[in-house]
Amino acid sequence: MSEHFFDQAVALTPEGDNAFRGAAHPAWANMVGPFGGITAASALNGVLSHPRLLGVPIALTVNYAAALGPGGYRLAAVPARTNRSTQHWTMAMTQPGTDGTEDTVLTATAVTAARRETWGLSDAPMPTAPAPQTLERFKPFGAEWLKRYDMRTVHGAVPSTWDGSGEHSLTQLWVRDEPGRPLDFLSLASLADVFYPRVWLRRATRVPAGTVSITTYFHADAAMLARSGTGYLFGQARGQAFSNGFFDQTAQLWNEGGELLATSHQIVYYKE
Amino acid sequence: MSEHFFDQAVALTPEGDNAFRGAAHPAWANMVGPFGGITAASALNGVLSHPRLLGVPIALTVNYAAALGPGGYRLAAVPARTNRSTQHWTMAMTQPGTDGTEDTVLTATAVTAARRETWGLSDAPMPTAPAPQTLERFKPFGAEWLKRYDMRTVHGAVPSTWDGSGEHSLTQLWVRDEPGRPLDFLSLASLADVFYPRVWLRRATRVPAGTVSITTYFHADAAMLARSGTGYLFGQARGQAFSNGFFDQTAQLWNEGGELLATSHQIVYYKE
Repeated sequence: MSEHFFDQAVALTPEGDNAFRGAAHPAWANMVGPFGGITAASALNGVLSHPRLLGVPIALTVNYAAALGPGGYRLAAVPARTNRSTQHWTMAMTQPGTDGTEDTVLTATAVTAARRETWGLSDAPMPTAPAPQTLERFKPFGAEWLKRYDMRTVHGAVPSTWDGSGEHSLTQLWVRDEPGRPLDFLSLASLADVFYPRVWLRRATRVPAGTVSITTYFHADAAMLARSGTGYLFGQARGQAFSNGFFDQTAQLWNEGGELLATSHQIVYYKE
Repeated sequence: MSEHFFDQAVALTPEGDNAFRGAAHPAWANMVGPFGGITAASALNGVLSHPRLLGVPIALTVNYAAALGPGGYRLAAVPARTNRSTQHWTMAMTQPGTDGTEDTVLTATAVTAARRETWGLSDAPMPTAPAPQTLERFKPFGAEWLKRYDMRTVHGAVPSTWDGSGEHSLTQLWVRDEPGRPLDFLSLASLADVFYPRVWLRRATRVPAGTVSITTYFHADAAMLARSGTGYLFGQARGQAFSNGFFDQTAQLWNEGGELLATSHQIVYYKE
């Protein structure tokens, strides 16, 4: 049995203390470099694979400094501070530059924590939507990574005509790994980035765009992940401001049971 | 004329390449250590004071690893990658630990960019609200830093009785520096953190809580800052998920003219 494409892509080999080796996987290719979600998951994997890890991920911020090239990369993952119940991580991905030195292609931070059972509730109920099985699967085209997900749009599909007629920036969809794979923190980190650029929807105009920085907060614990299993997640994304070359996106991911697993935000470069 | 408390608090002295010295200011004291907003602004100031700075802030993530102590701190601010129009920064604040080594008290990343004029719009209109002059100023109590802001609550005030009766997590308020100070990126970074813990409002129960990580996206450019001047900002904050020790907060800040200046997100530790 061959390993799932997701696991192949996030695989890391330890290289001394606080560092790993990995490589972009062609099955996750985007226009330039790999899909940002899989790169974020790879960076988080440096934390989750670290022998000194405390707890589970609470927050992850990934900054894309340059397109990840096809060769291997070095991932540094450093526990900068370990407290009694929280741990703070800094990560950096580097690749050999033209002059022989290592160039930074990604910087990141993460917080992990030993969760404790407390009072809790969701203040963002999942919107109502038709069941995923009743909707058509989005046909992957253009970028290879789109084949790695089964996406079924509920609202705010990619415009079919680029006529400048956009009126909102809200997309709602069902999504899961294709083929199915039990949800974990790594796949959740990747899924937070599956939404196409909000500027395309808002303007019904296709302009160059790319994520500069993404932050994901994990509300799921191991039990919530287990309850999610290989089911669909309901994802929602919306832009708040489009201003002189950058727009933001706020996103939520629920499981089929309506539990809010993660909230995510990103700032995206766009042209024109 | 004495310098504004804000400028006193974020002041830094260069210390060789890529590093500065600063100190927590007693005028911004919170329960434990200084108000997180002023610490975030201080970290950003390392970037904005750096001789190699390119452009203006687009994204800032600050992770609070430990309470900042009363002595001085060292702030490293490193341009990890400089592209044609964007620049990626990593920051770390350290203080001497008990064993003589430097302890990490804060990690952070930032992205700055040379903005270009593009198509743009706000997809998050400012809610309607009575003018700030018609509302009563929130009376600072408990924490010293509250005196540094003129806050006027529109909706979702701090509960007056802690009876477990909370029904939502939405706060809306007018806020400005007290005394007035022309808005800049540093004060905007600080203002993104003025909201009291959402868990207090949602539960009408006062439990220990503290920000673990905050990310702010800047939509304002120099012209929008100038238009904001010393006027009030309209701030809105809401929680999305409260789950086993951590809740998130999503926030927006508009100027009196209704321009969306910044969007911000944070994840907050809480007890019980």
